[in-house]
Amino acid sequence: MSPENKTDSNLNSITDFFLELDALKHVERRSFITGGKRRENSAEHSWHLAMACWSIAEHFNLQLNIETLLKLALVHDLGEIDAGDTFLYATDRSAAHHAERSCLQRLSDHPGNSINDLTDLWEEQELGGSREAMLLKVVDRILPFLLNINNDGKPWKEHSVRKSQVAGAHGFIAELFPEIHQWITHNIEQAVAKGWLVDS
Amino acid sequence: MSPENKTDSNLNSITDFFLELDALKHVERRSFITGGKRRENSAEHSWHLAMACWSIAEHFNLQLNIETLLKLALVHDLGEIDAGDTFLYATDRSAAHHAERSCLQRLSDHPGNSINDLTDLWEEQELGGSREAMLLKVVDRILPFLLNINNDGKPWKEHSVRKSQVAGAHGFIAELFPEIHQWITHNIEQAVAKGWLVDS
Repeated sequence: MSPENKTDSNLNSITDFFLELDALKHVERRSFITGGKRRENSAEHSWHLAMACWSIAEHFNLQLNIETLLKLALVHDLGEIDAGDTFLYATDRSAAHHAERSCLQRLSDHPGNSINDLTDLWEEQELGGSREAMLLKVVDRILPFLLNINNDGKPWKEHSVRKSQVAGAHGFIAELFPEIHQWITHNIEQAVAKGWLVDS
Repeated sequence: MSPENKTDSNLNSITDFFLELDALKHVERRSFITGGKRRENSAEHSWHLAMACWSIAEHFNLQLNIETLLKLALVHDLGEIDAGDTFLYATDRSAAHHAERSCLQRLSDHPGNSINDLTDLWEEQELGGSREAMLLKVVDRILPFLLNINNDGKPWKEHSVRKSQVAGAHGFIAELFPEIHQWITHNIEQAVAKGWLVDS
């Protein structure tokens, strides 16, 4: 194989990998974008999450690795390319976890992938306890919560989500970021008062 | 003002900033996502660009700062929140440049913004000559080129784009990444042969 052909073949693999990644734009979440015209997809959410994590890290002057934080945000939903999005308030999220892990392995093994630690990064955001992974989990809850409020609780109303479910899903934030947890609690109460969440 | 109120006010500003950023999801580009069902938006494109820049940097083992590279990709289209997207083959792109810069200033001055170097990063991706900014420019051309090919040249056909325009817009890549430029040149020829680009 001549060097030219090898190069062409490399670039065909790399660009094919980029097209594989493009599939994350097809994955629809439950949240709506601001204005409520359409549901959010997981690719634009991943961008939003990276920006928001970075902002929060700067605001609280957190001592963590911003590069790692951004990488975790960028890859955190890649498993949904094969597994689809799972609603935070779905009853069974463990099946999704396995399907997502298989998807990461498939992407990692793609001949056009050059990110050697792709699966490690995904595992870290999924199960890890690093400061970066913990912050990511918090902000990954804040954003859909914020969008749901901005859209008059639309996804919550669609699924008759209860106050206790939302409070439960955000409870872990109390220890990590009491200020943020207080803000969420306040907004949960308002959402109940407005009839967006079931008061139970 | 009690600390609690200050905290609430801080978090309202921060989350309002996140909602401002959300507007990038509303900005429609000319390219279509894979499958061609809809046009791409600038938020999901920014995620895709961050992933692709990171991949290319790893593939070519480029000696550059990945954190800076990812930050440049994440912020590179923020100016479009006010200015909208400008087609690569539009006749006047300078007006857009000024509107985008004003938008960055507005976002940077937002009380909920904690990213102190937001405008500096945007200026770097816009006009800078760092290795990170140069790679970003290259990959920012590759992705829509790739999507246009994947969608049978749809945006090119819509605007009767000529081969010389595409070759011209990608010419600067020859010196930086001869292999990538060769791949693009090959694909431009194919696009002309298929009637997706005007042969002039």
